[in-house]
Amino acid sequence: AMAGCGWARAVRGLLLDVSGVLYDSGADGGVPIAGSAEAVRRIKASGLKLQLCTNETQATREDFVRKLRALGFDISVAEVTAPAPAACHLLKERGLRPRLLVHDDLVPEFAEIDKTNPNCVVLGDAAENFTYANLNEAFRLLIGMEKPVLISLGKGRYYKETDGLKLDVGAYMKALEYACDVQAEVVGKPAKRFFESALAELGVPPEQAIMIGDDIVSDVGGAQQCGMRALQVRTGKYRPSDENHPEVKPDAYVNNLAEAVDIILQQL
Amino acid sequence: AMAGCGWARAVRGLLLDVSGVLYDSGADGGVPIAGSAEAVRRIKASGLKLQLCTNETQATREDFVRKLRALGFDISVAEVTAPAPAACHLLKERGLRPRLLVHDDLVPEFAEIDKTNPNCVVLGDAAENFTYANLNEAFRLLIGMEKPVLISLGKGRYYKETDGLKLDVGAYMKALEYACDVQAEVVGKPAKRFFESALAELGVPPEQAIMIGDDIVSDVGGAQQCGMRALQVRTGKYRPSDENHPEVKPDAYVNNLAEAVDIILQQL
Repeated sequence: AMAGCGWARAVRGLLLDVSGVLYDSGADGGVPIAGSAEAVRRIKASGLKLQLCTNETQATREDFVRKLRALGFDISVAEVTAPAPAACHLLKERGLRPRLLVHDDLVPEFAEIDKTNPNCVVLGDAAENFTYANLNEAFRLLIGMEKPVLISLGKGRYYKETDGLKLDVGAYMKALEYACDVQAEVVGKPAKRFFESALAELGVPPEQAIMIGDDIVSDVGGAQQCGMRALQVRTGKYRPSDENHPEVKPDAYVNNLAEAVDIILQQL
Repeated sequence: AMAGCGWARAVRGLLLDVSGVLYDSGADGGVPIAGSAEAVRRIKASGLKLQLCTNETQATREDFVRKLRALGFDISVAEVTAPAPAACHLLKERGLRPRLLVHDDLVPEFAEIDKTNPNCVVLGDAAENFTYANLNEAFRLLIGMEKPVLISLGKGRYYKETDGLKLDVGAYMKALEYACDVQAEVVGKPAKRFFESALAELGVPPEQAIMIGDDIVSDVGGAQQCGMRALQVRTGKYRPSDENHPEVKPDAYVNNLAEAVDIILQQL
């Protein structure tokens, strides 16, 4: 019955979201989603290209890949597109010196960046670093700038960890946007430029790529805006009400990554 | 030269914002703004009616008035219109049981309110209670409701304390609104209903009342929406860029409350 799915045709590469697709994150390191590690192996064995496209900002790419490998995923650092390296590129390009409001474990990604006398704020999923004092400090820096520059690593609303839903960076971005009357520049999904970087690393044009994610807006909507097809998995932060989203409709729903891979491989 | 100011004519009552008009707040209790205590005395001696219309949510009205009196202001509890009592009225009216995310010192205002099995979240200027854990908890409660109800005590962007600018409740309201995809109900300035309550307590119709505040949107814009005239003082959170606000233009600027009272009393 699935063999007739048009969306799976002429595919040469897959972009995969990570949290909620490969595994459910959590303070304990997280747990793999059933069938996902095997699905990654099957993608690689099939000859399809694969790139992880994540808004993860709680660790360097190196530590993130180490964690994924420990969970059983055959992934290398070059196969991960993440916001922090993209943000470093942008900061250098524009001569920006950030005040970081990010997770402690992300700080090493910015080792090469001049952070003296800040002229912008970079906001990531700072988790426990989202304190009243840190938010006030970032706010004061921004409101003191003639033209405040706020760079947000993604703009997710929330995500699911093993102990429950957590506010994501987008909520804090909105708080600072409102307080300073500025619009943040988003580096990460769903920014078009970020998906384009991931596609460049994948080496496949958008019409031959499929994005698979659990976030209806950041993953599905963002990828479709770039001309890709996009699937929503019913794992991670997926909620049934996503299927009535007023603006975004995925090319298909799948129960999980393993099912997506089943269908796609049948079409090759 | 000032005697010709048309906006000061036919006035019978004044609504005054408090923080930034009477005093600058701060962890140390705050400091009076020069001339403001004397200005309050002159208003009362003139026969004009007076009501304080504040978005203060860091203390009960009783404690707030005690603080103002210690700073030299001749004010009674009945002369203060504040969001928490207005919110209690609304909660009772609609059978809502709140989870409070407010300052510890505000909690006694909600003593009479059933808080078991919460079906809404009430957000105030929680200050140090704006922790990552408390925000996640409020978020989870809201996202778990079929139709989330978020009540915000004001929606200020920021305010000035003696040790610098601080994010106000509005920033955190925006964070929760975005994460839960809901619109908060604002109890406090600039909500029309709140100004109408203050006018009712003042006992003066809007066209015979003047609002005096430091916040271009909450004080000036809100009061004008109710048909009142409104002055912006150049104290408190006032910034010169307020004078280029794209939407709100006060009926006049005054350097401080004392100057406003000078002008108004000359017209009586």
